[in-house]
Amino acid sequence: MSPETSLATELQSRMRDVPDFPRPGIVFKDITPVLADPVLFQRLIHAMAEPFREQRITKVIGVEARGFILGAPVALALNAGFVPARKPGKLPHRTVAERYSLEYGSDGLEMHHDAVLSGERAIIVDDVLATGGTAEATAKLLAQVGGELVGFSFLIALGFLDGVKRLGAQRVHSLITL
Amino acid sequence: MSPETSLATELQSRMRDVPDFPRPGIVFKDITPVLADPVLFQRLIHAMAEPFREQRITKVIGVEARGFILGAPVALALNAGFVPARKPGKLPHRTVAERYSLEYGSDGLEMHHDAVLSGERAIIVDDVLATGGTAEATAKLLAQVGGELVGFSFLIALGFLDGVKRLGAQRVHSLITL
Repeated sequence: MSPETSLATELQSRMRDVPDFPRPGIVFKDITPVLADPVLFQRLIHAMAEPFREQRITKVIGVEARGFILGAPVALALNAGFVPARKPGKLPHRTVAERYSLEYGSDGLEMHHDAVLSGERAIIVDDVLATGGTAEATAKLLAQVGGELVGFSFLIALGFLDGVKRLGAQRVHSLITL
Repeated sequence: MSPETSLATELQSRMRDVPDFPRPGIVFKDITPVLADPVLFQRLIHAMAEPFREQRITKVIGVEARGFILGAPVALALNAGFVPARKPGKLPHRTVAERYSLEYGSDGLEMHHDAVLSGERAIIVDDVLATGGTAEATAKLLAQVGGELVGFSFLIALGFLDGVKRLGAQRVHSLITL
């Protein structure tokens, strides 16, 4: 096995399936056992950063809240700054905002208007790519401030949904596709 | 100036004071400009981990949500696992729970019951120590599962409040006291 295949296999074996969370019928992929293992956590961050190492990334955007846990270390691994994309009302300074659809209703994300400068090269990090709604909203925040989106780095991409297609397959990296 | 004094001075000069956030009369310390600077972010994480480097820490607990941004890199810097302490209902597996008082009302925190094993040495990381209510609740979560609390690492301690005293001064490390 290649090192990447072996990492994917190990990650999958260490994630915990939680049925009916957060709603009946959903099987939630619990990544906390992976984060609790220092060696696996280190390898995971290295692998999420790797595709972007030669890409002169200056900002890594992490999506609240699990995207903070992965995005902050990925930023440090790339010698880039970290930028939080947060739920409405959480950021104290002037923000740009986007709304996105959920299965039921909608939600919003905000970013400080000066968090990424025009022309800066950025990536977006989150734990799971599902429909791509959150990631797309984050990309729009970046576009609003004039940043250049180089790509997305996810731990897990749910292959049976349309997220990868929606974001543009060539820009999406994920360690595991389920 | 010692390296630590110089870092504290630089951090303070780069944080942004936001008046009347989240409520009138509060001056919020916005740390996002610090996180956006890769060199300063790296130095900050190094300094938050430093007091615990020889302490055989195996788990770093980060408090939702800004504590995730600091706690995850501190965990990696200490070769420890990362454990999120989250708002009620966010963690998918079986949890232990604590409630704590706010100025108005109360809030809760949860941790997976198996996130820290009995006897493991852990620290708690967050951005700001104010009254110490959140940090104390997190310490109680750790106590519920039998983990050993070695100390707290904060970016900022608000000295005019009683947080440091409440948590036990000898265990509390912070880069800045305001």
